[in-house]
Amino acid sequence: MTRGVFITLEGGDGTGKTTQSELLAAWLGEQGRQVVRTREPGGTDVGVEVREIVLHHRGDIAPRAEALLYAADRAHHVATLVRPALERGDVVIQDRYIDSSVAYQGAGRVLDPEAVRGLSEWATDGLQPDLTVLLDLDAASARARLDRARTRYDRLEAEASEFHDRVRAAFLALADREPDRFLVLDASAPVDEIQALIRARVSSLV
Amino acid sequence: MTRGVFITLEGGDGTGKTTQSELLAAWLGEQGRQVVRTREPGGTDVGVEVREIVLHHRGDIAPRAEALLYAADRAHHVATLVRPALERGDVVIQDRYIDSSVAYQGAGRVLDPEAVRGLSEWATDGLQPDLTVLLDLDAASARARLDRARTRYDRLEAEASEFHDRVRAAFLALADREPDRFLVLDASAPVDEIQALIRARVSSLV
Repeated sequence: MTRGVFITLEGGDGTGKTTQSELLAAWLGEQGRQVVRTREPGGTDVGVEVREIVLHHRGDIAPRAEALLYAADRAHHVATLVRPALERGDVVIQDRYIDSSVAYQGAGRVLDPEAVRGLSEWATDGLQPDLTVLLDLDAASARARLDRARTRYDRLEAEASEFHDRVRAAFLALADREPDRFLVLDASAPVDEIQALIRARVSSLV
Repeated sequence: MTRGVFITLEGGDGTGKTTQSELLAAWLGEQGRQVVRTREPGGTDVGVEVREIVLHHRGDIAPRAEALLYAADRAHHVATLVRPALERGDVVIQDRYIDSSVAYQGAGRVLDPEAVRGLSEWATDGLQPDLTVLLDLDAASARARLDRARTRYDRLEAEASEFHDRVRAAFLALADREPDRFLVLDASAPVDEIQALIRARVSSLV
């Protein structure tokens, strides 16, 4: 085969994306697949610098500037890491991609979600995932998980839970629009049950 | 009056934009005008961080990422500095704006110039200058000026002079398209002659 498989995980903070990514990567690795695990923002050296600005800048960032910074991170990440891996035939497992931008910046903020999507599609020259796993969890449960795991929050995590509800609704609306690409899972289920459902779907792709 | 005047200076490095900006700002200040001098990239705190990435990052930045970083800087700069100043009725004198992105990223690199312009128009929510002064100079003269002034070059300045020729041609093509907005001046003329021509044109705006 000449092209790999591009799998993204989406959902709010605290829904288990990192755990499920690790388990999926380990399972694919046991089968001898080359796996690249990555994330946005911050999957490259340029991305780390952009992430620093977006997440830890003191004071407000203009909404359009924030959307463009995420798109810049994405452009560099896709061009220098994701596309080369897919061209080698690897499986790329990525935390967050265009759907996060549309859900957070578009539905959650003041920007037109279709304009935000357009930025990312230009940034990535149209690269779409083969599969997107949406880990769906209500905001109160997600916050409770984060509270148990951490003592500090970054800027996005500190937003109100009402904002998380709007993001969750935006993710679900995206999944409704593209049912073939999305696998929507209840993130309150046991970790191994969720992983089994992901593996069943991934088996048909790799 | 409820709205200020937005003046941009364009042209390659070494064409005298900074000198002419300073002289124009001083002259307007003597007339009692509130003047804001600024530049892109780097006119705000967020912009300084973006400029650090664009100009001093080690290793290549994907072309689309670079264009998006410039657009992010511009979005924050216009929203937090330029528009508030214009709403106060100030004169904003800015080194480089959308025309630089189109000339450098579009004509000079591998990207579609109209896509690059589209990014900036979204970033700025359509803010256009009232006047754009293009300081036009052939690449060899510009490089000779820089050689006299400095011993180190940043990444863009180190590009070949053939690149500067393409940028110059792109700037001139932009001026041809919008003759009412552009004032094109021969940057090899004496500083005070250039300034006199700029002041004559600005007098009709402020």
